[in-house]
This record gives sequence, structure tokens and C-alpha cells, in this order.
Amino acid sequence: MKTLLIYTHPNHRSLNYSFLQQAVQGLKENPRIQEIQLLDLYSEAFDPLLVFNEQKKRRDMHIDPQLEKYRNQLLWAEKIVFIYPIWWGRPPAMLLGYIDRMFASNFAYRDNGGLLAEGLLKGKSVVCVSTMMGPTFYPFFWLNNAHKVLMKKALFNYVGIKKVKFFEFGGMEKPNGKQTKKLEKIYRYFRSITK
Amino acid sequence: MKTLLIYTHPNHRSLNYSFLQQAVQGLKENPRIQEIQLLDLYSEAFDPLLVFNEQKKRRDMHIDPQLEKYRNQLLWAEKIVFIYPIWWGRPPAMLLGYIDRMFASNFAYRDNGGLLAEGLLKGKSVVCVSTMMGPTFYPFFWLNNAHKVLMKKALFNYVGIKKVKFFEFGGMEKPNGKQTKKLEKIYRYFRSITK
Repeated sequence: MKTLLIYTHPNHRSLNYSFLQQAVQGLKENPRIQEIQLLDLYSEAFDPLLVFNEQKKRRDMHIDPQLEKYRNQLLWAEKIVFIYPIWWGRPPAMLLGYIDRMFASNFAYRDNGGLLAEGLLKGKSVVCVSTMMGPTFYPFFWLNNAHKVLMKKALFNYVGIKKVKFFEFGGMEKPNGKQTKKLEKIYRYFRSITK
Repeated sequence: MKTLLIYTHPNHRSLNYSFLQQAVQGLKENPRIQEIQLLDLYSEAFDPLLVFNEQKKRRDMHIDPQLEKYRNQLLWAEKIVFIYPIWWGRPPAMLLGYIDRMFASNFAYRDNGGLLAEGLLKGKSVVCVSTMMGPTFYPFFWLNNAHKVLMKKALFNYVGIKKVKFFEFGGMEKPNGKQTKKLEKIYRYFRSITK
């Protein structure tokens, strides 16, 4: 199984980075994982700004030559793992900018005139690992689960990806021994995933 | 009333830009509006990436010298008007990056140890004008109203801004005569607001 990790956090000395390390370690020890690619959006200095205007047409976004290597990476991957913190109830602007630019019409979906488009990334699966300050019940009860709804329904399902799994870890303001169990959970999950 | 318009769209030949023009025109004709400032994030080439690490501490974000003029602008404003398109169920990465960087701890809110922080932008009011492809019932019913929940509850209420009004306009894929009424609605609203 070809696995792409997309990592979005500015600080490599963060708990979020520890989750990436555990995921990578687990995947490396998993005999079913053939190849791993890592896209660290901050380290890559990915430009998150979608620009279209009279010169640069929106309808040509899906063939933007600057993004070709990232499109190939997405097409290559069978499983895509996103690791990011939750800021203001949703992923950082960097990751959302990656989405704004990459999930273009005629690459990620095709508009056939109906309310829902035809997803062009069918068959892939997604895992989202997110960390947040505060407890995880806050976004669930107070924010109508907005983060998951936006990622799963508005984005992944729309482009044809039906299998989406979430890990949400709260209490990140306390970098103490309690985090070890959460990190182990991620390590074990990725060591043993079969599809 | 001191009014700040924060505009986020890459293309000045868009319907979204027409909404900005109508809002500005209405505000200029409104005798209760003393001063208007416009922040066009794309034209300004605002850097939307929040960076913190060992060298650049997160706790110093609220005094980042690069952002001083934008902080002064926010503090100056009594009313803040956001105009933006809805992409993937939420605002563009550019606007969310402005939020990631600007709404820093000890500038926009103060953490006193409780679940909810103390909002430091109390007394201001917000209007969000957004445009989207497709019908407006889609995000309301299908996405649990995620866009409004994230903007109002997760962000503005958290920093102490209680008064938040939304205008959501759908059907932007049809740039025809039907849009005129929507533009007029915005013009009339801003020409007559009193607080």
C-alpha cells in the first residue's frame, strides 16, 4: 500500500511532530506498506495561496505546472495521512491552502452539472490525525463537529474518497506523561493497518 | 463608526469584488460612517503562514513587529466587514491565515485557565459577506452550518465579539441578471446601518 503523509506544523519540536514520527515508525514496521512519501508543507515552503484572474484562469488550475509533482504524489498514493493541529476549530491555513490549490476541478472532481460532482480520487482512503489545545468534546458539542464535517463531507467525500478515519487528540497544552499513550496508539495503528 | 473592510479574493473581476464595491459605496453614502479602511489581503500580499518554533516563540506572536500595522487596524475598527468566497465549505486559506496570525493570545484573547478565554476584542461588531457556487442550503443542511459556526462560535465569540451578522449568497456560477438584487441588498444594508 502506497502511503503519503502530509504534515502541517511549523515546529518540529512539537507534540504534533511526535505524532508524525510515531506514524512513520509504525508504517515502516508494517509489512503491508510498500512505500512511504512525506510531504512536510512548512519545510517544503509550499505556497498556500490560490490565485486566479484574467491571466491565470481558474479552469486551468488542474494543469498548473508548479503543482505537477504534488498532483503526481496524490495520484500515486493509495492512502493519504494528514497530520496537523486544530487552530480555531479547523486545520491551519497552510493545509487549507494546499487543498484550495490542489483539489482543482478536473483533477479532484468533475462538474457534470448536478449538485454533487463526480469524484476523481475514488478508491483512495484518508486518515486525519489532529491535535488540539483543550478537550475534544469542545469542537464536538460546541462547534457541531465542524472540523470533521468540513474535511469528510465538504472535501473528501466530494472528491470520491469515502473511507475517512479521524484521530483527534486534545489536552495538548499539557506536554507530560499522559501524551505517551496517545503516541503509542498512533504507532500501533499504523504498524497494523491492512488497508 | 470606524469601519474596516477585509477583502479576500484573488480576482478583481469577480462577483465577489462587486460585493466589495457595493459595500464601499453604501458605506460612503452612510452619514453615520466616519472613516473606512480597506485591507485587500491578496493585493496587500499578506503572508498567511503562522510560524513559531524554537527561535520565534508562540507566546510572542501578539507583539510580532511585522503585524503591528494590522493589529492597530483591528484595534481602531469598531465594525469589521469580511468579504470572501466560500471554498470547500469555509473561507479561503488567505483569510484563515490572517486569522491564524492576527488573533494571537494576549492580543485577541487572554487565557485565564478556564475552558473559554477572556475576549480582548469586546465591543466590536462583525459582518461577513460570503459568496458560493451552488445553493446556500447545501452548507446549512449538509455541512451542519460549519462555516458560520467556525466564524461565529470558534472565532469571534471567543475573542469577545458577540454581534456577528452573515450574508451568504449562493448560485455564483451564474453571473447573470439575478445577481443584481443581491448586490443591491448589500449596498442598501451598508448605506443604512446605524451601529
